[in-house]
Amino acid sequence: MAMRITVLGAGSWGTTVASVLTRRDHESLIWARNPAAAEEINAEHSNERYLEGFPLPARLRATADLAEAAAHAELLVVGVPTGAFRATLEQVRPDLHPWIPVVSLSKGLERDSLLRMTEVIKDVLPGHPAAALTGPNLAKEIMAGMAAATVIATEDLTVAAEIQRVFRRGLLRVYTNHDVIGCEVGGALKNVVAIATGIAQGLGVGDNTRAGVISRGLAELTTLAVAMGGEPSTLAGLAGMGDLVATCISPHSRNRYVGEQLGRGRSLDDILAEMGQVAEGVKTVHAAVQLADQHGLAMPITRTIHRVVTGDITAERAYDGLLRAHPAGHESEPG
Amino acid sequence: MAMRITVLGAGSWGTTVASVLTRRDHESLIWARNPAAAEEINAEHSNERYLEGFPLPARLRATADLAEAAAHAELLVVGVPTGAFRATLEQVRPDLHPWIPVVSLSKGLERDSLLRMTEVIKDVLPGHPAAALTGPNLAKEIMAGMAAATVIATEDLTVAAEIQRVFRRGLLRVYTNHDVIGCEVGGALKNVVAIATGIAQGLGVGDNTRAGVISRGLAELTTLAVAMGGEPSTLAGLAGMGDLVATCISPHSRNRYVGEQLGRGRSLDDILAEMGQVAEGVKTVHAAVQLADQHGLAMPITRTIHRVVTGDITAERAYDGLLRAHPAGHESEPG
Repeated sequence: MAMRITVLGAGSWGTTVASVLTRRDHESLIWARNPAAAEEINAEHSNERYLEGFPLPARLRATADLAEAAAHAELLVVGVPTGAFRATLEQVRPDLHPWIPVVSLSKGLERDSLLRMTEVIKDVLPGHPAAALTGPNLAKEIMAGMAAATVIATEDLTVAAEIQRVFRRGLLRVYTNHDVIGCEVGGALKNVVAIATGIAQGLGVGDNTRAGVISRGLAELTTLAVAMGGEPSTLAGLAGMGDLVATCISPHSRNRYVGEQLGRGRSLDDILAEMGQVAEGVKTVHAAVQLADQHGLAMPITRTIHRVVTGDITAERAYDGLLRAHPAGHESEPG
Repeated sequence: MAMRITVLGAGSWGTTVASVLTRRDHESLIWARNPAAAEEINAEHSNERYLEGFPLPARLRATADLAEAAAHAELLVVGVPTGAFRATLEQVRPDLHPWIPVVSLSKGLERDSLLRMTEVIKDVLPGHPAAALTGPNLAKEIMAGMAAATVIATEDLTVAAEIQRVFRRGLLRVYTNHDVIGCEVGGALKNVVAIATGIAQGLGVGDNTRAGVISRGLAELTTLAVAMGGEPSTLAGLAGMGDLVATCISPHSRNRYVGEQLGRGRSLDDILAEMGQVAEGVKTVHAAVQLADQHGLAMPITRTIHRVVTGDITAERAYDGLLRAHPAGHESEPG
């Protein structure tokens, strides 16, 4: 059944999801903060800033009017950066149809509240079922029509099955998972590990070490997710290991790129200014360290990246810390 | 304490380990099947066939005389291909000092017996403690002096601690693990998953799918290892995920290379003839499928690679099977 769906946020992932939904015959409307971006999508069927070279479906409509976008929705999908997530929801609230589900595309934790994005949805929009779409989903590959698997995480399995039906299309396989905590913590923390992997790559320390950082990173985000109430099997699946590995091996990942440039000795301010895009891991690492403290967890990789991001240590010094991060599993201390 | 150590097998990993041990001040002797290779190590301090461009330590000695190599050893390290493992041990038996530990560097399963390499050691050399050295250890990075972590797996923790002392050096961090089954099954099966990842790469299906294959591959090798008596935490550590990820992301992995070439449409015979080196995954996959049957496990990636290796299906058809492999974790079936 075709549906009226609004996607908030015209970044690479929001635009990709809106395109997939349009090709799935839904009446998709994408909200772009920048009117010129909305105009480009409507007139040129492109989004050159975020998806250079990819034609968008001609039937995909865009608007810069948030009230219009909100009123359109029978299902709301939110792909704005986590730093703008709460404020955007507060703005759409007056125009939103009651009880429609809200799906988060954003992977991160809210800075001071330490909330996951579905918790922010419940906070701002009580009565609306909240879900997260997550997994190994590099936007440009999905735009190019390559196969991918994604996960809809929500506690209500009936809602999950409905959203699954809305999204599934050809080579995009949609799975459901009731473990929302595990899925969202995995998605948020993998960006921090991607920065660490990028640093290793930028320093040229080799694939043995890079594989070690990815492995210990998975152990670290699993430990945090489980302490928060998530299930270990979620972190071993698409929303944990799958997303982490895709992010860490892809040349397209922004967080991995930030790490790589840090490893080459550039300053964070420089890198972020050049990118003009959000690297969520840079923001989420603050919340992650606070959660590690709350739960009494060591999380050496997360703490090391936090010290780099706050300017406390250089990426080169961070490398020592990453090497010393205790391995996953039960291997005993080195002799 | 410096020790007389023999390394059997002058491939890239055997030569690397012998070099590390020599630099660690042990009296290392490496046995090369080919007298010209032994001569090259002694006279030129190089092994151009396997470690092109890397100078070997001048004090590293080589021989093509297996009896001499065996008699030299206070500790025996075995790095011959799994297909020659048993026969080589049978040949050294008469000249070996009693009760010296034997460390396997070889990652695979014996074809018809389905035995792990430490089981072959116990079978041929009863009374000798058997250990496996495993983990994310790309030989050329270790030769280049880059950091790496490795695992000594053996049931006897006193022997493990002694071997740990023998190997540790600078940036090579040595951990111990009593779960020999988990370590060896992880090391053997990761080569099969590396072939699968290589096929995905050769077909150009993208990093989302490649990450999915790696994740589901880890789930698959964990399932088999646990069914055989291994511990899940081992497979989440250096000897499981660490080794798997290093192999799957490295341009140097032979098994990944075989898969990539298969994905590009070449025949297995062609690829193996060109390489002139052993790709253990091609042989281990036969034993892995038999073990999957014995334990009643689905293992779709392993079975798919088995069908490719036996010529039953093309790599392109295998891709369909890899996409359908059930995801790790408890995500429910796609809608």
